[in-house]
Amino acid sequence: MIRLEHLGIAVKDLKTSNELFKKLLGKPHYKIEEVESEHVKTSFFQIGESKIELLEATSPDSAIAKYLEKNREGIHHVAFEVDDIKVAMELASSLGFKVLNEEPKRGADNKLVCFLHPKTTNGVLVEFCQSIK
Amino acid sequence: MIRLEHLGIAVKDLKTSNELFKKLLGKPHYKIEEVESEHVKTSFFQIGESKIELLEATSPDSAIAKYLEKNREGIHHVAFEVDDIKVAMELASSLGFKVLNEEPKRGADNKLVCFLHPKTTNGVLVEFCQSIK
Repeated sequence: MIRLEHLGIAVKDLKTSNELFKKLLGKPHYKIEEVESEHVKTSFFQIGESKIELLEATSPDSAIAKYLEKNREGIHHVAFEVDDIKVAMELASSLGFKVLNEEPKRGADNKLVCFLHPKTTNGVLVEFCQSIK
Repeated sequence: MIRLEHLGIAVKDLKTSNELFKKLLGKPHYKIEEVESEHVKTSFFQIGESKIELLEATSPDSAIAKYLEKNREGIHHVAFEVDDIKVAMELASSLGFKVLNEEPKRGADNKLVCFLHPKTTNGVLVEFCQSIK
């Protein structure tokens, strides 16, 4: 585990939340990126070696839309950067964590990502991510 | 805002969760600390420049006990390190964030801390912290 890569926060309206987090963090988001396959629009703020990622649903099929049907806006997941995502997925499975995808998938920010089921991780939705070189 | 100092995770049983996070993060916690004034026992894991802080309630009066009455185990708060906590609190108030304590209070890990009400921060319980020198 190299670092806490980002903290994902589910928001209803990206524009409103970008303004709010600009005030809170004292700096603006440095990019907006839409991930069509995940039906989300994201924005990123850099804080030290970590990022804050705001996530807005672009379709009712989005995991973020489903999350916001059941929960308030708030922290959605935490992402850890790993050296090799396939090795990390195999190790996590062998240790009893439920890996939610069979293969790494393409996420925002030029990364391969996978998720671990919160039921096996103390209620925390954990993402592993690896930069695509 | 200097860095994402730690992510606080509310757990029911610190011993069980220490084992779980040791497997997940690939390293053990490096200390356990009880904060009597907050009625919590905490453990810390270092990941890059950030920490994971697990929090177990030591009394029904603890904010963590009250949190776990209403919520599942999971991410409880995110803490950002600031240069000067009093300046950060005044600035946050002036920008419309609700600061939950009038004065910084002593937290775990030799820090002065304050919290911002989640209603004003997109559902995220935000902590500011400053190391005591």
